[in-house]
Amino acid sequence: MNTVNTSFKKILVPLDGSKYSEKALQRASEIGITFDSKIILLYVVEKSLPLNLLDRKEYLEILHKFGDKTLKKASDFLLKKEINAKILLKEGNIVTEIEKIAKKEKCDLIIVGNKGLGSVTRLLLGSVSNKLAQSSPCSLLIVK
Amino acid sequence: MNTVNTSFKKILVPLDGSKYSEKALQRASEIGITFDSKIILLYVVEKSLPLNLLDRKEYLEILHKFGDKTLKKASDFLLKKEINAKILLKEGNIVTEIEKIAKKEKCDLIIVGNKGLGSVTRLLLGSVSNKLAQSSPCSLLIVK
Repeated sequence: MNTVNTSFKKILVPLDGSKYSEKALQRASEIGITFDSKIILLYVVEKSLPLNLLDRKEYLEILHKFGDKTLKKASDFLLKKEINAKILLKEGNIVTEIEKIAKKEKCDLIIVGNKGLGSVTRLLLGSVSNKLAQSSPCSLLIVK
Repeated sequence: MNTVNTSFKKILVPLDGSKYSEKALQRASEIGITFDSKIILLYVVEKSLPLNLLDRKEYLEILHKFGDKTLKKASDFLLKKEINAKILLKEGNIVTEIEKIAKKEKCDLIIVGNKGLGSVTRLLLGSVSNKLAQSSPCSLLIVK
């Protein structure tokens, strides 16, 4: 195997706890190991409420806990492969937060699953991966 | 650098002669070398006529020549990096042909630029990369 210089120095992996984002994480670990990239794991708590079933505060608390758990699980998965990832939990619009972090952290690749990530956003605005395909500030890998 | 098993065994790179597809080709060569992937270069001659400026036959001949030249240039670029690519020239709808070849050749990754590739299709239906983000049969890397 030859080595080459690439632009995959810093990879952002937005997670949502779905099997789709697990597949994206798996692929990120392969690329990360091979290209010696830094990996940032991101969970975004969607502020918009899908239905008025729960108290807003309670709803956000549940999502925060789920986000922490999802990030911990992904981080442990990477640690087993000797990859130290940075983890971030944000609140807001998923696509906006992904793009904000990608810019702020100067990521050169975002890896997402082709489904999952933001049921609310998807229903209203089309899937997150489709939105990112149009507006991502860096290269985008949609894993299928 | 460690080695890992990945799914990037066969990469499809659709070209259109633009600087965007050159960037996609550059990235494909890096990934191809690193993961020892097979690379297929594809040029699709769009059958739909954008404007009635030229005789249909003459228009298609020009596009065929441009396609041959684009594929030759890309193939030479890869040969310098000791990558032997398969080259294909097809006639039809760009997105349809890309998806057809990806399935037929059992590609596991398509690499495209974020602009370019099908001015007609883009104006009418949104960009090719956006369309593929929704309907690609395998993983998709949109290079920016």
